[in-house]
This record gives sequence, C-alpha cells and structure tokens, in this order.
Amino acid sequence: MTSAKFQKPFLAALAGQRQPRPPVWLMRQAGRYLPEYREIRARAKSFLDFCYTPASTVEATLQPIRRFGFDAAILFSDILVLPDALGQRVTFETGEGPRLEPIADAAGFSRLRSEPDWERLTPAFETLDRLKTALPAEVALIGFCGAPWTVASYMIAGRGTPDQGPARLFAYRHPELFGALIDRLVDASADYLVHQIVAGAEAVQIFDSWAGVLPPAEFERWCVAPLAALVAKVKAREPGTPIIAFPRGAASQLGKFSGMKGVAAIGLDTAVEPAAAAAMLPGDMALQGNLDPLALVAGGRALDEGIDRVLEGFRPRAHIFNLGHGILPETPIAHVERIMARVRGA
Amino acid sequence: MTSAKFQKPFLAALAGQRQPRPPVWLMRQAGRYLPEYREIRARAKSFLDFCYTPASTVEATLQPIRRFGFDAAILFSDILVLPDALGQRVTFETGEGPRLEPIADAAGFSRLRSEPDWERLTPAFETLDRLKTALPAEVALIGFCGAPWTVASYMIAGRGTPDQGPARLFAYRHPELFGALIDRLVDASADYLVHQIVAGAEAVQIFDSWAGVLPPAEFERWCVAPLAALVAKVKAREPGTPIIAFPRGAASQLGKFSGMKGVAAIGLDTAVEPAAAAAMLPGDMALQGNLDPLALVAGGRALDEGIDRVLEGFRPRAHIFNLGHGILPETPIAHVERIMARVRGA
Repeated sequence: MTSAKFQKPFLAALAGQRQPRPPVWLMRQAGRYLPEYREIRARAKSFLDFCYTPASTVEATLQPIRRFGFDAAILFSDILVLPDALGQRVTFETGEGPRLEPIADAAGFSRLRSEPDWERLTPAFETLDRLKTALPAEVALIGFCGAPWTVASYMIAGRGTPDQGPARLFAYRHPELFGALIDRLVDASADYLVHQIVAGAEAVQIFDSWAGVLPPAEFERWCVAPLAALVAKVKAREPGTPIIAFPRGAASQLGKFSGMKGVAAIGLDTAVEPAAAAAMLPGDMALQGNLDPLALVAGGRALDEGIDRVLEGFRPRAHIFNLGHGILPETPIAHVERIMARVRGA
Repeated sequence: MTSAKFQKPFLAALAGQRQPRPPVWLMRQAGRYLPEYREIRARAKSFLDFCYTPASTVEATLQPIRRFGFDAAILFSDILVLPDALGQRVTFETGEGPRLEPIADAAGFSRLRSEPDWERLTPAFETLDRLKTALPAEVALIGFCGAPWTVASYMIAGRGTPDQGPARLFAYRHPELFGALIDRLVDASADYLVHQIVAGAEAVQIFDSWAGVLPPAEFERWCVAPLAALVAKVKAREPGTPIIAFPRGAASQLGKFSGMKGVAAIGLDTAVEPAAAAAMLPGDMALQGNLDPLALVAGGRALDEGIDRVLEGFRPRAHIFNLGHGILPETPIAHVERIMARVRGA
C-alpha cells in the first residue's frame, strides 16, 4: 500500500482511494484540438503510419501532459490496429473515419490470422517502453484496446455506423461465426494488453464504444461475457495491473459489471447519473467520467456547472475525472485549462 | 370501464389491463418496407406533399392494417410538419433525410410564427377524421408529435446528426433562447395534439427519439420538464385520451417518468430490459416495446427468440407489443407476418 505506484494519484484512485481532488485525464487528450498535434500529424503519410512510428506516438502522447499536466498519459494508437495486425485491411480516410474490408462470411473470417502479427504492433510496445522514462514521475501510463464487440462491429461493417446495424444483423444471422470472431478478439486483445503491460503500461482501458446499442440478451452475450473473459485472461497473467472498462451507452445495464472480478474502474459516458452508477456498482470499483465534451466546447457557465456537477456527483467514491466521450477537435485550449484549474481548486 | 373504447385491445392495454396476448403495432408500420406504400409514395412530388395529401395519408395509414391486422393505426405524417407549420423551411432529400433552415440565433428564432399555421396542418386532421370511419371497429387510431427536445434538435441542427451535437451545444451556449424555443414547441405541440384528438385520435404518442443523448441535468431540463408540461396541457383539455411517451435511449433514466401524471404508457427502446423498466415505472403505467428491428430483419431463430423474450419479459404488466425503434425498409413482409402469428399464438 505504500509502494511507489501509489504516489501516482491516478493509480491510487484505481486502487479505490478517494482523494480530495480527483486525478484527471481526458479521452483523446492527444489529438486534433492541439495545434502541436496537428503539426506533427500533418507530416505523416497516413494515420496508421503515424500510429506505427514511435517517434510520433511518443511525442503525441506527451504533448497534452506537457501542456496541461494530466495525471495519466494514454498510449497514442487506435483500437483498429488490432484488426490490422490480424490481417484485415484497414485505412483511415481523412474526414471520413476508418475503412476496413468488411468480413461478410466464413471465407472472410478464415482469411484472418489466428493471432496478431506482433511485429506489426511492435511500435506500440516501443512507444510504451520509451514513455516509461519520458513521463513525469507522478503521471501514470495507460495502455488500451477496443472491446471485442466494438472491434468486431467495425470488422463486420467495414466502417463506423450510427448504430452498428451491420454487426448486429450479422450476429443474428450467423451467431456461431460471429462468436468465433469474438473469441478470436478476446484472445488477441488479452495478449495485446499483456504485451502492453510488459512494455510499461501501468493500467489498461478497454473501450466498448458501442456497448449501448444491443438488446439485453445480446448485450450479455456479445459485450459482458467476452469482456469478462478478456479481463480474466489479462488478470491471470498480470494480476497487479488495474483494468478500466468503458461500456459507452450502457447506463442502464451497469449492474452487469458489478460482479466482474478484475475490473478496477468503470468509465461512464455523459448520460450516466453519478449516484445511479454508484448504486449499481460495488464500493471498491472506482468511477471514471463523465463531463459532456460539448460542455467543454461551450465553456463559460455551462462548463463550470458541468465540472462542478461531476465533482459533486462522484465525491462519495474513488473518482477519476474525465469526459464522458472523447474530446472534440473544436475544443478551445483555454477550456481544457479551465478544467485543470477548477478540478484542482486553483 | 365498459365503454366501447375498451373493446379495442390497444386502448384496454393503455388503461392498464393485462391481456393474455398483447395488442400489436409497429413504429413506422406504414412505410417503405411495404411495396404498396412505395407505389403510392412514388407518385407524390415530395415527402411533405405526400404528408399533406389526405388521400395519400389515409391510404398509407390503412395499408399495414389491411395487410397485417395490427391493433392500432398511426396517422401517417412526420414530426417535422410542426416546424414547417411554424414557418421554418423543411424539405426531405431522397436518401438523405430532412433538411431545415437551421435556427442559429435570436433572429432565426424570431422568424418563427408564434403559433402554427393550422391551415397547413389541416390535412393531418382531415386524415384522422376520415380514418375514424375507415378503420375496422377493433383498431385504435393513434395521433402523434415529436417531443420538444427532439424537434428542437432538428430545428437547430437543420438535419439529423448522430448525437444532436449542434442542439446540445446551442443549449449550453444560449440556454434562455433554447428555452424559449422549447416553450414554443410545448405550446404548439399541445395544441397540435388536442386538434388531433378532436379530429379523431384515440391516443397520442410523443416521440422523443433523441432523449438519450443528454447528461442528467440537461435531460431533466430539456426532456423531462417540457414533456411533463406538454402532457399536462393536453390532459387539461382532453383528460380522457391516453398519452404514450417514447423516450428513446433513456433506459437508465426511466425513473424520471414515474411520477408523470397523465402518461398512460412508456414506449421502450431496444436496449431496455423489461424487468428493469417495470421496476422503475409505476404498476399502472403500460409498457410498449421493444423487439429489435434488426432481429425482425434477420428472421428465423433470432426473430422467434426475440419475440418470445419480449412476450415473456413484459408478461407481468399491461403490455403493447412493438419494436424498440422504427421498422427498417429492408424488413421482409413474411417476418412481420411471423410476429403476428407468434404474438397471437397462431
């Protein structure tokens, strides 16, 4: 309990410690709202090239830490590097988001590698390794991956969609095949997170961005059970590393995570009422969230009230201050500074 | 309690009566999945022209009743006829959805009429009037409007967006002006629903399609309070007509509707667990929903299991069988027939 780790406020929160001022980081804190990011990003040939160049990803990860002094840095990468390493063709079109060669049938599934091409993912591990020493002593380092359901939904649809309809329909029509894809992702994601931890990640977050679109039975089958399997696999090999699950849009079903051993914290989206989340989740699970990124864009009174409501709402629990979704590119820098000042009581 | 009304299973459910087989209707049951609809729609100059031509809307409303024998018919129209009647320019682009001249500021708001141009909405009332006699005796007639928040979100953004970001940002930046728009919509929607009831609607549904995107405080302010005000205004003038509220995406916040006097039923989206909804809502509120429209597209075992889960889940309550969202254009006719056979135990 007095190990060096716990001098980092972020890790203390994940260990269930309430703190007078919660640690802060923001989802997508390294990204397009930062002029210094846009500058280095413009020099890369493509987004994936950027993700696979440690000099770029180390710098991108560090930029928001230098500027704002967040309590945690998160590996600069993307959840779709895993399908890429599994042999699915992935590209990012400027202004249009990701494009993948959709998996349409058993033949498409059989073209996937049985395990990721680790060579392809080496830059992520190298990035983490370099960040270990580059970060200030009090700043924690987070690794991450997408949850099996969310990653599978992109692999089936070949792109982002408003409600992941293609994957939902595929899962109804071909449950065995979809289950095989989910299993493949559980295994690959567990290995990927363990490699990240070995390389230097002190905590990992599993992003289930599309958890909220499924009916209860499918939510249980495609979100909760695979997530539990993934968490169990990681904890079996790296029991000391805390795991954050972020089931976006699943406000009403948070109770299904209450018994998930090995999950240190739940990330909460914008729509979640802090007291409701606290009531559904055991007292030793930390809660992370959940300022509306649009309140952060708006600034002024909306921002101050939003920050205060989050601080107040989560005060009874171990809390990590964050947004309820990724920071938006149009966010003014001064508004992020405002968060830091207000959360830290400056 | 023995009035003619209650010979209609749909109205009996709204009065809180459990029935061995729930009444059935489907959101967007009149629409593009029906070849007979596509045929009459193709003859109209535009979607709005179609909505404003009683010969078309009467026929479109009746088509699914004839084909499937649903227990309720819903006025064929669109929630955006109200902004149109308030003087905002509204068009529907084929394949792209609605386009409105966005309200960007106080000047934009001031160009709205203080109350709807009722002449413009006369076709809706005429449609209801004609349907009263055209429908089979056991089929109930539903009127509807959009909830103030959802309609306002289109009026601000000028189009559909994945998360109604433009309206949320506008509300943060200009809460007084946004509040004035919401108030205008509460009044106009109340009058509109009362006119529909006078014309023949036996129940009305308020569609809050975008209720789920707001943080708790904003949900209270822009969804719950305006809906309560709208319901109160309608009930003050038409106390005998049941009202269904459909707060899509608000699974975790259903408790906020539990004290809303005058709401006979809550429509539930696909993600809602029946038992959880029942626990949050008083026993005399009927529950409507919530089969996944994608399970209906998929058919087969996914459809049968989905239907059975809905029937089983809502069995303890007065229930109206419906989808959790509108029926999709690619839905096979035979799958809708399957719903009718399975729900009715044929």
